[in-house]
Amino acid sequence: MTAYEALAAHIAEYNDLLCILNTLRWDMRAMMPAGGARSRGKQLSTLSKLAKSIFVSDATARLLDAVEAEIAGADCDSYQARALRQTRDAYEIQKRIPAELVARMAALGAESEAVWAKARAENDFPSFKPFLKGMLALNIELAEAIGYDDHPFDALILQFEPGMTAARLHQIFAELRASISPLLARIVAVDEPLAIDLWKAEYDLAAQKRLCHKLTELIGFDYDRGRLDSAPHPFAISFTRDDVRITTRYDANYLPMSLFAALHEAGHGLYEQNIARELTRTALTADFLGQYAIGGASVGAHEFSSRLWENQIGRSHAFWERHFARLQAAFPQQLAEADAELLYRAVNRVRPSLIRVEADEVTYNLHIMLRTEIEMALLEGAIAVDDLPEVWNAKMQEYLGLTPPDDRRGVLQDVHWSFGGFGVFPTYTIGNIMAAQVLAAAHAQLPDLVASLANGDYQALLYWLSENIYRHGRAYSPDELLKRVSGEGLNPAPLLNYLERKYSDLYGLS
Amino acid sequence: MTAYEALAAHIAEYNDLLCILNTLRWDMRAMMPAGGARSRGKQLSTLSKLAKSIFVSDATARLLDAVEAEIAGADCDSYQARALRQTRDAYEIQKRIPAELVARMAALGAESEAVWAKARAENDFPSFKPFLKGMLALNIELAEAIGYDDHPFDALILQFEPGMTAARLHQIFAELRASISPLLARIVAVDEPLAIDLWKAEYDLAAQKRLCHKLTELIGFDYDRGRLDSAPHPFAISFTRDDVRITTRYDANYLPMSLFAALHEAGHGLYEQNIARELTRTALTADFLGQYAIGGASVGAHEFSSRLWENQIGRSHAFWERHFARLQAAFPQQLAEADAELLYRAVNRVRPSLIRVEADEVTYNLHIMLRTEIEMALLEGAIAVDDLPEVWNAKMQEYLGLTPPDDRRGVLQDVHWSFGGFGVFPTYTIGNIMAAQVLAAAHAQLPDLVASLANGDYQALLYWLSENIYRHGRAYSPDELLKRVSGEGLNPAPLLNYLERKYSDLYGLS
Repeated sequence: MTAYEALAAHIAEYNDLLCILNTLRWDMRAMMPAGGARSRGKQLSTLSKLAKSIFVSDATARLLDAVEAEIAGADCDSYQARALRQTRDAYEIQKRIPAELVARMAALGAESEAVWAKARAENDFPSFKPFLKGMLALNIELAEAIGYDDHPFDALILQFEPGMTAARLHQIFAELRASISPLLARIVAVDEPLAIDLWKAEYDLAAQKRLCHKLTELIGFDYDRGRLDSAPHPFAISFTRDDVRITTRYDANYLPMSLFAALHEAGHGLYEQNIARELTRTALTADFLGQYAIGGASVGAHEFSSRLWENQIGRSHAFWERHFARLQAAFPQQLAEADAELLYRAVNRVRPSLIRVEADEVTYNLHIMLRTEIEMALLEGAIAVDDLPEVWNAKMQEYLGLTPPDDRRGVLQDVHWSFGGFGVFPTYTIGNIMAAQVLAAAHAQLPDLVASLANGDYQALLYWLSENIYRHGRAYSPDELLKRVSGEGLNPAPLLNYLERKYSDLYGLS
Repeated sequence: MTAYEALAAHIAEYNDLLCILNTLRWDMRAMMPAGGARSRGKQLSTLSKLAKSIFVSDATARLLDAVEAEIAGADCDSYQARALRQTRDAYEIQKRIPAELVARMAALGAESEAVWAKARAENDFPSFKPFLKGMLALNIELAEAIGYDDHPFDALILQFEPGMTAARLHQIFAELRASISPLLARIVAVDEPLAIDLWKAEYDLAAQKRLCHKLTELIGFDYDRGRLDSAPHPFAISFTRDDVRITTRYDANYLPMSLFAALHEAGHGLYEQNIARELTRTALTADFLGQYAIGGASVGAHEFSSRLWENQIGRSHAFWERHFARLQAAFPQQLAEADAELLYRAVNRVRPSLIRVEADEVTYNLHIMLRTEIEMALLEGAIAVDDLPEVWNAKMQEYLGLTPPDDRRGVLQDVHWSFGGFGVFPTYTIGNIMAAQVLAAAHAQLPDLVASLANGDYQALLYWLSENIYRHGRAYSPDELLKRVSGEGLNPAPLLNYLERKYSDLYGLS
C-alpha cells in the first residue's frame, strides 16, 4: 500500500463519520420525536469528538508527511493533489483550534440558542444580551486561534468561504448598494397591487406535496438517490452523492412557501447528487475544517445552486408559462381566476420588508449587508452589544426605509448569532452573485438554453452545471470555478444586470 | 474521578455509538432511497469497527481491572455490579472473536443474502447451497472461538439468549410438542370456515395508519418519545428509551397485517420506553457482546413483550369486544356485516401452513422447532446442507402434516441462515413461553386486571410490567426475571394452558 492509499483509506473513514453526523442531524430536524433531543445531543457530541480525534491525530500528520514526500513533483492540479492540499490546510487550522474552545462554544451556544428563542418570542432583547456578549467573545477567541492578517472577520469567514475577506465584502457591498437602492426606489414608486389575492384560499397539503415532488423531479432531482420530507426549517443535507435528503415546509394558506423552499433545497440537492462518483469518501466531498460532509466548493457556492434553481429558474417567466397549467390542475378552484402572468407577478412582488427570510430578490441582499456590517463592527469593537437594537433600526431605516416596531421583527429575528455562527450571512449574497454569473455563462455557451428552458427541459442546463461546477466537488474554490466558466472571479455585475432587466420589465420601469 | 466513573464515561460513549448504529439501521430500513445502500454499508462498517476498537481495547481492560479492585466487596446485586459483570463477560468473549472472522462473516453474509434472495425468487436451492455451506462453516468457526462445553449451538445462542443451551431447548421442545400436536389435531378435525371473508374488501391505507397509531397509543406507546413508520419488514429499534422507532407494513387487502405488526412492534417499543432512566447510556441498555443497543434482558425476553401485546392482548376476546367499534367506524362499509365475535375468530384462525411468518399461535412454535433442530444437526454434522430440502420436507410432514410444493415455500423461505444468523430462531419460542408466564403472574398479582383489560385500560398492566420487567433493562437474565415474578424459570406450562383454554373455547373442543 502506498502512503497515498493509506491516507485515502484514513480519510475515507473520517468522511464516513462526517456523513453519519449528517444522518443524525437530518433525523433530528426532520424525524426525531421531541423526547429524543437530549440523547441525540450526547450522540452528536460523542461522535463529533471522536471524528475530530481521528482527524487531528498523529496518524493524520504522519500520513500527510509521507504522502507529501511520496508525490513531490507530481501534477499539482490533479484532484489528488488538491485533496491533499486541502487536507493539510484543514489539519493545520484545526490543530490551532483548542478542543476546549469548541466545547465551550457548543455548551454556551446551546444555552444561548434556547435563551434567544424565548427572548424572540417575548420580544426581550435584554435577556439575550449577556449570551450574545458571550458568543461574541468566543468568536473573537476563535478568530485569534485561527489567525488573520487584517480583520478578525477574515478568520471566521474562512470556515465557510475560503478566499473571502472583510475588505473584499466591503467592495462588493458598495457595488451592490449603488445599483440596488435606486432600483428599489423606482419599483416602490410604481408598485402595482395584485388584482386578486391568490393565497387567501386553502391549498391541500397532500396536493402541495405531490407538486413539490413533481417540480423537483422535473428539474432533475433523482429520487432513487434522495428523498423529500417536511421540516419546520427546510434544509438539504447529503450522506454521499447517492443519498441526498431535501426538505420543505407546508402552509395551507401560502402555497409559495412549500414550492420555493422545495426548489431551493432541490438546488442544493442537485449539486450534491452530481459530484463525480470518484470523489465519494474523499477530502473533496467534505469540509474538514468545519467537520461537515458537504460536497460544494463553499457554503456560498452551495447557495449559488439553490438560488439559481429557486430564483433564476423557479421564479422565471418561462418556468410559470410552462408549469402554470400543472399548478392549476392541482388546485383548480383556488386558481380558477389566475393565469401564468398573474402567478409570475405574485411570486416576484418586491417590497421593502422587515424580515430577511420573507424578502424578495431585490431587497434580500440589503438584509445581508446590514447583518454582515454589524458583525464586522462588533468584532472590531466599533459597536457594543448593548447598542445593537439602535444600530439595527438605524441601518434598516437607511437601507430599506423601515423601522422595526419591536426587536422581535428587528435584531432578534435570526438564529445565527445565538449559537455563535458569525461569518455565515455573506455566503447568501455570494450565492446570489454566483448564480447570476454562472447562469449568464451558461447562456453564453449554450445558445439553445432559452428554448430548452421554455420547453421545460432542464437537462441541458443540469448537464452543463454538472460538467462545469458540480462534478468537481470541493476541488476548486468559488473564484476558480467562476474563472473557469466566465473568465473572471466573483463579480456582482451579472446579478445587477439580471435584477435591472427582470424588474424593469415586471414593473414597467423606464 | 473514581475508576467507576471513568469506566461509566467510557461505556456511555460506547453506548452512544451503538445507538448511532441503530439510527443508521432504522434509516436504512425505513427511509433510505435505494441508491444509498452502498455508502450506508461503508458507514456501518466504519462505525462498527470503530466501536469495537473502543470496546475491545487496553483502555477498557485497564478500567475494568481498576473498578474491580475499587469495588471489591461491595453489594454484588446492585445495578452497578451487574453492569460491571456484564461488561467484563462481554469483553472477555469479544476478545476471543477475531476481527478477521467478523469481517469474513460480514462479507460472505452480504453476498450470501443476495444470492439467497435470488434463489428464493427462482426456487433454486442448488445455487444457494455453496453459500449456506460457507455460512455454516463460519458459524462453526465462531462457535469454536466463543467456546462451549456441550454443543456448538450453546456458543451461538449465547449471543442472543444467555443461559439457554441445546440440551435445555430439546427438553422444552419435547414438552411443547407433546401438547401442541394433539391440540392441533383436535382443531383441524373441527375446522369451521368463516361465514364471510372480511379481507376481500379494500382497506384504505391512510385509515389503517391512523388506526395503528391509535391502537399503539392506547396500549401505552409514548409518541413524544417514539414514532411509527412503514417498512417492508416491520421492526422496532431504539436510540435510548427516549427515542424508540416502530414500523409496520400495510396491505390494502389484508388489514390484520398492519394492525398486528404495529401491536407487535409497539410491544417491543414499550419495553424500551419503560427502562429506568438511570440505565440510559450504561451497559444495561446495550448488548455489548452483540454490539447492539437493545435494552431488553435478551432477544427472547424482548420477544416476550412483543408477543404479549400482539397475541395475548391484541388477539384476545376482550380486546376486540372493546375496540371492534373503533375498527368498524374506520371501515364502515368493509365491516358492515361483521361484529366483534367474527373479528376475534378471523384473527385467531388455526391452520397448519407452510410459511412461518403467516403461522397462527398454535402452529408457530412447530415451525421454530423444525428450524432449530435442523440448525443443531447441521452444526453437529449429523445432516449435510446437500440434504436440507429432504430433511426440511420430512420434518414439515411430521410436525404439520404438509409437504412444501417447492423450496421457495420450504427451506428457502427465511432470510436468517443466508446472513449467518444461527441461534436466533428459538428466541421466538422463548418469547411465546415467557409471555404466557408473565401474563399469568400479572393476573395472579393483579386481581382487577381482567376488568381493566375489558375496559380497554392498559395502564395497570403496563405499570406492572414496567416495575417487574421493563425497568431493569438487561440487569437480570430472563430466568432471573421470571423467578422474580413467578417463582420459577422458563416453563412452557402456562403457554400450553393458555393455548388449550383459548382454542378449546374458540373451536368448541370437548
